[in-house]
Amino acid sequence: MAYGGFRELASLNYVMSSVKSLLKHKPRVVTVDLLEALGRFLAEDVTAHINIPPYNRSVVDGYAVRSIDTFGASLSNPVILRVKAFIRVGESPEIEIGPGEAVEVSTGARLPRGADAVLMYEKTRRLGDIIEVLEPVPPYGNVSKIGEDIREGEVVLRRGMRLMPWDIAVLASLGLKTVNVYEVRVAVASIGSELVELDNIQDIREVLDKNLVVNSNKYSMIAQLRSSGFTPHYIGIIPDNIDEIASRLREAIAEYDAVLTMGGASVGKVDYTIEAVRRLNPEILIHGVHMRPGRANSIAVIKGKPVFMLSGFPVASIVGFEALVKPILLYMVNGNDDPKPKIKGILTRRVNTPINVRSYVRVRVYRKNDGIYVEPLALTGSGVLSTLVRGNGILIVPEDREGYDEGDIVEVTLLREVFEG
Amino acid sequence: MAYGGFRELASLNYVMSSVKSLLKHKPRVVTVDLLEALGRFLAEDVTAHINIPPYNRSVVDGYAVRSIDTFGASLSNPVILRVKAFIRVGESPEIEIGPGEAVEVSTGARLPRGADAVLMYEKTRRLGDIIEVLEPVPPYGNVSKIGEDIREGEVVLRRGMRLMPWDIAVLASLGLKTVNVYEVRVAVASIGSELVELDNIQDIREVLDKNLVVNSNKYSMIAQLRSSGFTPHYIGIIPDNIDEIASRLREAIAEYDAVLTMGGASVGKVDYTIEAVRRLNPEILIHGVHMRPGRANSIAVIKGKPVFMLSGFPVASIVGFEALVKPILLYMVNGNDDPKPKIKGILTRRVNTPINVRSYVRVRVYRKNDGIYVEPLALTGSGVLSTLVRGNGILIVPEDREGYDEGDIVEVTLLREVFEG
Repeated sequence: MAYGGFRELASLNYVMSSVKSLLKHKPRVVTVDLLEALGRFLAEDVTAHINIPPYNRSVVDGYAVRSIDTFGASLSNPVILRVKAFIRVGESPEIEIGPGEAVEVSTGARLPRGADAVLMYEKTRRLGDIIEVLEPVPPYGNVSKIGEDIREGEVVLRRGMRLMPWDIAVLASLGLKTVNVYEVRVAVASIGSELVELDNIQDIREVLDKNLVVNSNKYSMIAQLRSSGFTPHYIGIIPDNIDEIASRLREAIAEYDAVLTMGGASVGKVDYTIEAVRRLNPEILIHGVHMRPGRANSIAVIKGKPVFMLSGFPVASIVGFEALVKPILLYMVNGNDDPKPKIKGILTRRVNTPINVRSYVRVRVYRKNDGIYVEPLALTGSGVLSTLVRGNGILIVPEDREGYDEGDIVEVTLLREVFEG
Repeated sequence: MAYGGFRELASLNYVMSSVKSLLKHKPRVVTVDLLEALGRFLAEDVTAHINIPPYNRSVVDGYAVRSIDTFGASLSNPVILRVKAFIRVGESPEIEIGPGEAVEVSTGARLPRGADAVLMYEKTRRLGDIIEVLEPVPPYGNVSKIGEDIREGEVVLRRGMRLMPWDIAVLASLGLKTVNVYEVRVAVASIGSELVELDNIQDIREVLDKNLVVNSNKYSMIAQLRSSGFTPHYIGIIPDNIDEIASRLREAIAEYDAVLTMGGASVGKVDYTIEAVRRLNPEILIHGVHMRPGRANSIAVIKGKPVFMLSGFPVASIVGFEALVKPILLYMVNGNDDPKPKIKGILTRRVNTPINVRSYVRVRVYRKNDGIYVEPLALTGSGVLSTLVRGNGILIVPEDREGYDEGDIVEVTLLREVFEG
């Protein structure tokens, strides 16, 4: 008897190139307030319509001067200037300085007309309305020039950038109250007649006694989507019934930008989700990929939108999100993934992985006697969530390797900080 | 004339140890739904009150058997077993197998009593109600044992852990609907009579013509606090008036777990925030730290709570958050910082930094001809936000160095992915 439903698994590279070429749907653009924009993907280039700073301003506390007046000044031969006024940041007095004049300014204050530099207090000696300049200051010394930070007309932020705190501050500095970002609405469904919603549970032991399973994948997936800048819409549990799955997925595909299921995409006789998706006339249907855990993870394109069918095994779906879902959703918004924290360490035990498969090995990274060590926790066991919780890293073994030897230096993606000892 | 208000700057290490020893206040513990818990800090150890899996279950599709029955089986000499039933995941039939018997199971299904292993389909040949076993399976082969993932009584998650997607899934698997997390409520105020709220602006050019400044720091600070797992409460702009600052800060200290101001903590004559805080009888007041940018960043402890007084310069306040605020807030929740993405590259130009100062140099990291290069963007200019937006990394130069030479290999914290070319 042939083994299960997988005839030929697809490589992750093949999945990416073939699926991307078929995605015709574009996610919607929404206008959001700045504080709602954190972590979202910019839907347009942002061009500055003003200069920042909008005028020459002082970057220190001191005296605004004509730099030419200070040339040749020294401790033994100070230049004398007359202080006309004090300009604080935010004030806009109509003051101009001429030869022999200075204006006291606070940090951030606009330079008075005529001034082109600022002397710090310590380079001067104050005597009533007079200062002695003890050192020369060059033109634009201690001055932030108009447009030095951002030039009017310049493209400051580009479409597809994921907005970070400082990007939001730049938008505010430009006087923009809202910003256009992509909204990628992802329908999330859990498939399996054995599943029970956490909210409906009175006593977990009763659930387990009936051999039912808490729908915990829902939580990790919604959390992964949110923290990656996408917008999950949970549409519920669908029982193991091909008609019902097909009908619910058809609706979801019409309504959302992407659809994601967990469960019902296994290796066995009972492969409801795949059969349901087959009925929806996919442009492409890739059943199973060369990854481990998660070889049951599958993907289709229907009406130009991606449909992800992830394994019901917790770790397989979590890794499937990183390997399959996130790259495709990022592609839809022209975005790049955030950089990942990585660390190199010494492998404490041989890791065996199959050739032609990308393997995601959960590991524990620790520091001991100034060395960094990588201890493999689980090679199999795609259901064993605790390895992600007890461990703090993932070692990705690429397709062209059959693992790593004990003592090899390997690079690991860190999920939490390195453990001590 | 003496230079400004800084007599002696404090090292960051001194700040951390002296401030931490004075923090007596504990943030409150709140009970939140699981999906609200993402990125928050756990306020208690979580102990498993059940086993996961709750029973021995199959990790493949195939036949549950007594392993002892399969010993000696081979292609030429198969063992014959009778198939009694089919158990799907979620089903709980009262079935027991005896010698010579098997039960067909789907992945995740509970093993029937008597069975201790599962044969994958490909190791069998089906003939009606009979299977031929073509290979032996060891005890617990293809079985996920009770408690293998999580043992009843085991501490699964520890106080202070920042909750990640998989942690939330573990809590759900344990049947927990809510979780106790710390809530660190941080009052955020912007100080400066020159500031205008973005929301009150009609035309940014009018604001700039009056030499007023948009309160953009508010946005980056709220975003930084939120994305680090803390809870900002913005309390508004306070004008440059020592009485008013003192009164608003007194209220905020009574109400919140920490207080953070931006602006009004400069080097100059006008140092409103520091003077206001001095009036509130701080247990400690550290005015200025050996960091650059951000030497004006200051910190106090009042009534056992931290009061951060950050520079009004955008980059100085952003860096001040990372260097001063975040470590202290993490300490209050017993938390560790997330690991940061780092990369090594070749410095394209000498960087000069002062000795005894921790310098945060904004850099642009790019890949060219297989090499990674680090181009310094700004050594000074703590107001120049665009360097954070155009760049993609921060090079931290420690206190014991006066910079790095062109060609040095340096390690950089990445804010965005490495640029190409």
